[in-house]
Amino acid sequence: MYSTLKRLLLGRPLASHEEEHQRLTKLVALAVFASDAISSTAYATEEILLVLVPVAGMAALADLVPIAIVVTILLAIVVTSYRQTILAYPHGGGAYVVSRENLGTNPSLVAGSALLVDYVLTVAVSVSAGVFAITSAFPELGPQRVPLCLGFIGLMMLANLRGTKESGRLFAGPTYLYITMLSALILIGLVRSYLGDLGPLAVDEESLAELTERGRLVTGVTAFALLRAFSSGAVALSGVEAISNGVPAFKKPESRNAAATLVTMGLILGSLFFGISVLAHRLRPTVSEHETVLSVLGGAVFGHGSGAYYVLQLATFAILVLAANTAYADFPRLSSFVARDGFLPRQLANRGDRLVYSNGVIVLSLLAGALIVAFDGLTAALIPLYAVGVFTGFTLSQSGMVVHHWREREPRWQRGLVINGTGAVATGVVLLVVVVSKFTIGAWIPAVVIPCVALVLRRIRHHYDGVARALRIDPGYRPAPSHHTVVVLVGGVHRSLMPALAYASSLHADQLVALHVSTDPEHEDRLRRDWAEHGLDLPLTIRPSPYRELTRPVLEFLDEVESEHPGGLVTVVVPEFVVAHWYSNLLHNQSALALRARLHQRPGTVVVSVPLHLGAARE
Amino acid sequence: MYSTLKRLLLGRPLASHEEEHQRLTKLVALAVFASDAISSTAYATEEILLVLVPVAGMAALADLVPIAIVVTILLAIVVTSYRQTILAYPHGGGAYVVSRENLGTNPSLVAGSALLVDYVLTVAVSVSAGVFAITSAFPELGPQRVPLCLGFIGLMMLANLRGTKESGRLFAGPTYLYITMLSALILIGLVRSYLGDLGPLAVDEESLAELTERGRLVTGVTAFALLRAFSSGAVALSGVEAISNGVPAFKKPESRNAAATLVTMGLILGSLFFGISVLAHRLRPTVSEHETVLSVLGGAVFGHGSGAYYVLQLATFAILVLAANTAYADFPRLSSFVARDGFLPRQLANRGDRLVYSNGVIVLSLLAGALIVAFDGLTAALIPLYAVGVFTGFTLSQSGMVVHHWREREPRWQRGLVINGTGAVATGVVLLVVVVSKFTIGAWIPAVVIPCVALVLRRIRHHYDGVARALRIDPGYRPAPSHHTVVVLVGGVHRSLMPALAYASSLHADQLVALHVSTDPEHEDRLRRDWAEHGLDLPLTIRPSPYRELTRPVLEFLDEVESEHPGGLVTVVVPEFVVAHWYSNLLHNQSALALRARLHQRPGTVVVSVPLHLGAARE
Repeated sequence: MYSTLKRLLLGRPLASHEEEHQRLTKLVALAVFASDAISSTAYATEEILLVLVPVAGMAALADLVPIAIVVTILLAIVVTSYRQTILAYPHGGGAYVVSRENLGTNPSLVAGSALLVDYVLTVAVSVSAGVFAITSAFPELGPQRVPLCLGFIGLMMLANLRGTKESGRLFAGPTYLYITMLSALILIGLVRSYLGDLGPLAVDEESLAELTERGRLVTGVTAFALLRAFSSGAVALSGVEAISNGVPAFKKPESRNAAATLVTMGLILGSLFFGISVLAHRLRPTVSEHETVLSVLGGAVFGHGSGAYYVLQLATFAILVLAANTAYADFPRLSSFVARDGFLPRQLANRGDRLVYSNGVIVLSLLAGALIVAFDGLTAALIPLYAVGVFTGFTLSQSGMVVHHWREREPRWQRGLVINGTGAVATGVVLLVVVVSKFTIGAWIPAVVIPCVALVLRRIRHHYDGVARALRIDPGYRPAPSHHTVVVLVGGVHRSLMPALAYASSLHADQLVALHVSTDPEHEDRLRRDWAEHGLDLPLTIRPSPYRELTRPVLEFLDEVESEHPGGLVTVVVPEFVVAHWYSNLLHNQSALALRARLHQRPGTVVVSVPLHLGAARE
Repeated sequence: MYSTLKRLLLGRPLASHEEEHQRLTKLVALAVFASDAISSTAYATEEILLVLVPVAGMAALADLVPIAIVVTILLAIVVTSYRQTILAYPHGGGAYVVSRENLGTNPSLVAGSALLVDYVLTVAVSVSAGVFAITSAFPELGPQRVPLCLGFIGLMMLANLRGTKESGRLFAGPTYLYITMLSALILIGLVRSYLGDLGPLAVDEESLAELTERGRLVTGVTAFALLRAFSSGAVALSGVEAISNGVPAFKKPESRNAAATLVTMGLILGSLFFGISVLAHRLRPTVSEHETVLSVLGGAVFGHGSGAYYVLQLATFAILVLAANTAYADFPRLSSFVARDGFLPRQLANRGDRLVYSNGVIVLSLLAGALIVAFDGLTAALIPLYAVGVFTGFTLSQSGMVVHHWREREPRWQRGLVINGTGAVATGVVLLVVVVSKFTIGAWIPAVVIPCVALVLRRIRHHYDGVARALRIDPGYRPAPSHHTVVVLVGGVHRSLMPALAYASSLHADQLVALHVSTDPEHEDRLRRDWAEHGLDLPLTIRPSPYRELTRPVLEFLDEVESEHPGGLVTVVVPEFVVAHWYSNLLHNQSALALRARLHQRPGTVVVSVPLHLGAARE
């Protein structure tokens, strides 16, 4: 039944050779890799305002454009920097790989942890922001925020367990639609604003009062607030690194095409983010928890209730879901790399029967779902956690590139060194700003979690190394033969006992005994009579069990055997009958099961269940 | 850790010989066996009013005394009838035993089911009524009704898993306190009333309106309402049968003492029930869902807030908890009888390490808790379910006694026949009245559940009989020897493989093969090289697993072996390593576990795990 349901939901199993590889044109690759980065324009501007407005009121809009300029400059630095990575690592250079090869194990584990945490947050942030786009258009859905988020995560989990071919077409539609709608919004909005056709919007006093009231309690210093606002805007850069992982998916020449796509993506991302910020500066929307800034702007420019407005909201939702979906490709892939290096449980390196890393998909869904529940599905609450992982990855990746240039001394290495050095310093400073400015409102969580995850990864590898050492043997190694005692557990003289006795006799035993654990004197007497009557010549040892349990007396008996023959091997033969239906097992004592589990833990002990199948009788 | 917690909560294990038997004086026995029956006076009168008031308003009080008279006459008949049972079954004659011995298997199963259902309801009804006594005195606790009920059930479960010595002292206190307080209430109340010191109480119009408004929708015909009210009052008889089960616990002469105690109990129960009904008739309390009638009467007679009032409420609560606790003695004991007869899962016949039938205690708690939740902790909602089981038991038990007298023809058997015949007819008629009059408001539930439980009991016995037949063998039976193939599963050439290979060679095999399931061509090549390098001469069969799974290729291989040697025996030897900590298992693929479980289901297959303990190295 379980397997029928599984087939229905996930489809037929796929054989290993059915895996396909697809090469992407630049146009399609842009859609596939850029959705994550570009989608952040849906919330980055708003997040800046959400920090500033509570401390400065509507006056905060004055600081929006300067902050947007700084973020855009940072974006330019990071894009230039990652261009170097793409050219240097044509087979894919994520932060984990680059820091492993250039900085060593520990930095690579920190980078890996940062990325894993980052992917979980990508899912949580993107899904919550996508649902926010929906609830902005349909406010009556607002209270259903958390169930909606969990529902979409569940759907993405299912889709990714089935395995999505990263079909270019699937991605291209929403990504280009979003770019088009956002460009239209910015252009039409700015033109109408400069022509005087559209003035600043009316202030929503109620929402403003809500925000400012709470805000004054939390912050106060303006310089600090500016840094904090900048940290929020910096999340616009999340996802920029995606192309560096995916170079091999491009058509030839891979590196050149990938680098060109990266630059194009940077330009689009920068223009959209800057454009939205300028538009917001002019139209002065009031940020609130009930409607996104993009929805307010879209309503003002296109008209609330117009077709274009709904298309904008839908496109926003769609690109955010795609962004979350890229994490569904990245998290399982990265964790399979890390697992293959021995730093994560091996199960994460196994592909399920649909050729996807099913365990990674499930783990990602559970973690992202937990975050959604813990932070009540609020994007603004998740943002402070997000930037830390992103910039940790950037910093380590760029630092790795610095070492790479220094070591390789490839042509024009000095130029690369300067570029990546600038990138490393810039992203490192931003990381510091993010951690410090947002430490108390959530950044402490990744600042604690990322090092802890890195430590756990080390411990896991340590464990695997220990096991591998213990299992390694030299050619010619053979275990020394040891004294072998075979113990047959006897419940009663039944049909199931006979094959077990026959099996036990067939073992090369130095000593063969039958053991009965007695809880009932009446039953014990009958067993003795039956034993004699059936002509069983094996010596029958009977042990009382005053506490009416099976496991302890058996263990005590085995300890006695052990003390007589230290280091010897003991085989415990358990006669069992297997009933035809699983539910029938509920009618039989499962003490044999507990015994087997316990004996499995005992060194030098082999457990043999000799099952007799009732209803499928065999001799 | 689990076992430490268990010891802390339940105490040290008790050996079988530590069981104690206690003989009870009549005075103590009355407290032990009568708490269940007498406690029903706490709600029986109220339940009559709760049926009548909604259809007739305060005029209903006119019918209270006539109904109480009929119930009291019924009580006299049942007590007289059970006196015969006690004298005829000095070793204990519950409805299950009496109907098994006189009426045959099927009636005894119905009686057994009725009693089991009855005990569950005893817990649910008594606990909810006890909590109602508390919330009547402390109305602010009212909304916490369900959690309070569940909490008390949890405490009783724990206490009974520890095992309560049915200490006479424990029972005597609350039972005699309740009898004293209730007698005082009735006497003082009636005296004050007849002296004119205490008139009829003011009608609580609000509560009355609440009840009458709903009531008129449900009932209407007065004759039907009277029958229904009588059915509610008849629950006062529940628990009367308890002494007939417990005859062996009395001091000698057991039967005589038990019979005398039964009559005393009947007199006390009858007087208290009738007294409360008369007092209610005179004082005209308004029934409501917020306060028990007993609390209203107590408040009127003793004064609300007086010490005597609180003692009355506390004593009511205490005796009801004791009544629930008697079901904790009866349910596990009866289910162990039934299980020993093969009609219930054997686990219910096993005593836990505190010498109690732990599984019965747990099952009872879960079922009673579920009822409390389903019926929102309302006594009045549970009552219609209650009487069906009680009177089914009575009817079958008395009918059994009729057959007993007819068969035995003991001295004065005709007199016994008349007495029990009257009892059987009376209780049978009441059963019919209860089922018909309350069918739509809940009585259909036990009317469906009791026969279904009886059917399940039959099926269980049928299964056990089938298994026993299948396992039975004649002396001299030996299974025919069959072709034996030993298959060693190989993952890689590790230290853990060697003891498994050695073990496999030690089996008397007709054929010995090593099997590797390959999911990774690279790993497969290394295995072939290692196999040769380590000089392993066993033939190595390699099977590809295109879907990257272990179980299916192994099963396919075994099917091929089977087709070559039909009816042969196959042993699958699985080399395993056991890590020191359970959590380390999370880091290793558990596919061997799934394989073992699957192979266990395959006829003619023996699975041998040869574990290598890492960290506790042995050769």
